[in-house]
Amino acid sequence: MEELEILGGSIELPKGFLASGIFAGIKKSKKDVALIYSEKVANAAAVFTTNKVKAAPVLLDMKRIEKGIAQAIIINSGNANACTGEKGFEDAVNMAKKVSQLLKIDEENVLVCSTGVIGAPLPMEKVLKGIEAAAENLSTEGGYQAAEAIMTTDTFLKGVTAKFVIEGKIVTMTGFAKGSGMIHPNMATMLSFILTDASITKVALNKAFKETVDKTYNMISVDGDMSTNDTAVILANGEAQNKIIEEGTHEFDVFYKALEYVNKTLAKLIVKDGEGATKFMEVNVINAKTEKDARLAAKSIVNSNLVKTAIFGEDANWGRILAAVGYSGADFDASRVDIYLKSMKGEIKVCENGGYIFFDEALAKEILKEKEITVTVDMKAGEYSATSWGCDLSYDYVKINGSYRT
Amino acid sequence: MEELEILGGSIELPKGFLASGIFAGIKKSKKDVALIYSEKVANAAAVFTTNKVKAAPVLLDMKRIEKGIAQAIIINSGNANACTGEKGFEDAVNMAKKVSQLLKIDEENVLVCSTGVIGAPLPMEKVLKGIEAAAENLSTEGGYQAAEAIMTTDTFLKGVTAKFVIEGKIVTMTGFAKGSGMIHPNMATMLSFILTDASITKVALNKAFKETVDKTYNMISVDGDMSTNDTAVILANGEAQNKIIEEGTHEFDVFYKALEYVNKTLAKLIVKDGEGATKFMEVNVINAKTEKDARLAAKSIVNSNLVKTAIFGEDANWGRILAAVGYSGADFDASRVDIYLKSMKGEIKVCENGGYIFFDEALAKEILKEKEITVTVDMKAGEYSATSWGCDLSYDYVKINGSYRT
Repeated sequence: MEELEILGGSIELPKGFLASGIFAGIKKSKKDVALIYSEKVANAAAVFTTNKVKAAPVLLDMKRIEKGIAQAIIINSGNANACTGEKGFEDAVNMAKKVSQLLKIDEENVLVCSTGVIGAPLPMEKVLKGIEAAAENLSTEGGYQAAEAIMTTDTFLKGVTAKFVIEGKIVTMTGFAKGSGMIHPNMATMLSFILTDASITKVALNKAFKETVDKTYNMISVDGDMSTNDTAVILANGEAQNKIIEEGTHEFDVFYKALEYVNKTLAKLIVKDGEGATKFMEVNVINAKTEKDARLAAKSIVNSNLVKTAIFGEDANWGRILAAVGYSGADFDASRVDIYLKSMKGEIKVCENGGYIFFDEALAKEILKEKEITVTVDMKAGEYSATSWGCDLSYDYVKINGSYRT
Repeated sequence: MEELEILGGSIELPKGFLASGIFAGIKKSKKDVALIYSEKVANAAAVFTTNKVKAAPVLLDMKRIEKGIAQAIIINSGNANACTGEKGFEDAVNMAKKVSQLLKIDEENVLVCSTGVIGAPLPMEKVLKGIEAAAENLSTEGGYQAAEAIMTTDTFLKGVTAKFVIEGKIVTMTGFAKGSGMIHPNMATMLSFILTDASITKVALNKAFKETVDKTYNMISVDGDMSTNDTAVILANGEAQNKIIEEGTHEFDVFYKALEYVNKTLAKLIVKDGEGATKFMEVNVINAKTEKDARLAAKSIVNSNLVKTAIFGEDANWGRILAAVGYSGADFDASRVDIYLKSMKGEIKVCENGGYIFFDEALAKEILKEKEITVTVDMKAGEYSATSWGCDLSYDYVKINGSYRT
């Protein structure tokens, strides 16, 4: 196993990790409390929502992650513990405290995540009982249950495991995520947890995580709204016993590549499960002047309601794509841009040098009938590229998000 | 008539203006060429789309408006003359040239606007014949026909006339606009034309126009996508014979107030005619630290798909409103924010100090059943406020914009 081995859809916990997922009664009938535990204190890195309105657990974790270590993560679904004031913060602290008491670990090394309804107090009695049950149920086989317990309106479970070799030692990295289903009746939240038994320095872990998050979760769009609870965390506990990975080494590159793969896989699964989504769209902006220009353009396209509805309507409407690039803030010359549409059915150029060219409308229609569409925007201005992922905007998006809470 | 007199819905051309609207065959059956003409060269100001992808007529007008004067505006609907390269620019120039020949005026004083399909060449033969017909039909009663000829998917005509007195002279200001209907199969465009017989300096006109545009057209959102063709122009020809209005005078304030009223009326009409819109929403952000913070927050709320679908769904979902403020870039303290919902049926506070408070859900439902909803966000941080206007996001928006062009 010289290269990256991917166990798609599988959640195989790396050495030294245990997990569980149980039903505590926060939701009506589905699992709603998950616990992740590393037998050894792990190096850790995390990214959080940049929304100024941050849920209580986000505020707690932002502080705790500063020291670059963690040993457990307690997660509840069904209630976001957001816009809940000082009481909400106390509740988050008490969730962590309960975990630290049960597992006999340092309270400061417990992170907390919540997802669900905004502005309602956590039912703490149920939550604390749920934490007890979750601690009792911890197992090396519990990854799947934990991934189940963080789901909200997700229609399928999102997990992936990668294995790779660092100087003869097999390293496992598993990730699972939820999103971007709308938490009825409130808002979408993305949570993502990556666990690995790699031995890696805090600095290298932080760099690899932040950079790959930027290329993956930060390049997807379901509806352009940003949650109060978005959190992605990685724990690396060193139990694979590999020589510690440092920045600027070949081993770092191997680790980075695996992490990028895991994050990208989860990001794409999140988009594919976007509310009401009927089609998946990958946007490649190529030959941009700078990486920033490529990223701005790629994100603007997947965020555009007009592009999303055109994809839903199977309409080769390149004018909307070009216009979305136009207001993206990217620096580019519109009169040089070429645009291509691609799917399993073939590929066609629909715009050349920023203008109309003849193309086979029947073929365009065939291409756009597929479920997975790739849009390529060639800026012909430089060497940088970026990829983003999104879904279409359908009647069902409006239905799911427009239904009155009852 | 000491104060502002408003002739809602009426388009009464000010002294010295003529206009016409005719059918030239660019569209299938509806009027598609409009001409506006001032007997005297008028002082002029304009604002244009900030999209980097600009239609040919926008590029032409941006150059011509620099000298602050204009005498005629030729407008076609049905074809946006956007993404049409050098040929498109030549076509725009030739539209103006034709007008200048027919009306015997300086070519440089003719502005051009187009709205419609992107990426298709203008049918110039039809356009030039249409311009001849439009010139022949110019009349002091032609404002209504001109307003009709700029419509695309608009479901009603948008016009307003205001009258006010400047030192004993009656001044008339009339405005008409189109948008934000989607130009099937391409994109929404806003065009707005304000004509007045006021005598006002170029500097004062420019200041008043840019500032009021910022508070009106720049504070509305239908779908957050920005067109390649958006243009708003004002012509002031001085035929009211009032003493020339300069900045910093009482007369300037009177003019400014009238202009703000006219622009705001048109902006609100555009939103009310938003594609698929079933509800109109006014958002007031009050007591912000700075004007910028108030504007960012107000715009973010009307732009949020989640807020739009909540309004469509008649759901008092204050968490989505607060979250949209959170990612707006505005500086504020979430734990101080109060949120109110209001309509003809009453007003309720749904969020206090950034958190849940008890409110009457039945009353909230009654309030949100109305067609016009006001959202007030009190930041309790300063003295600045801003207002934005938007519509809901409905099944019909998806239907209108997701239908394949045929």
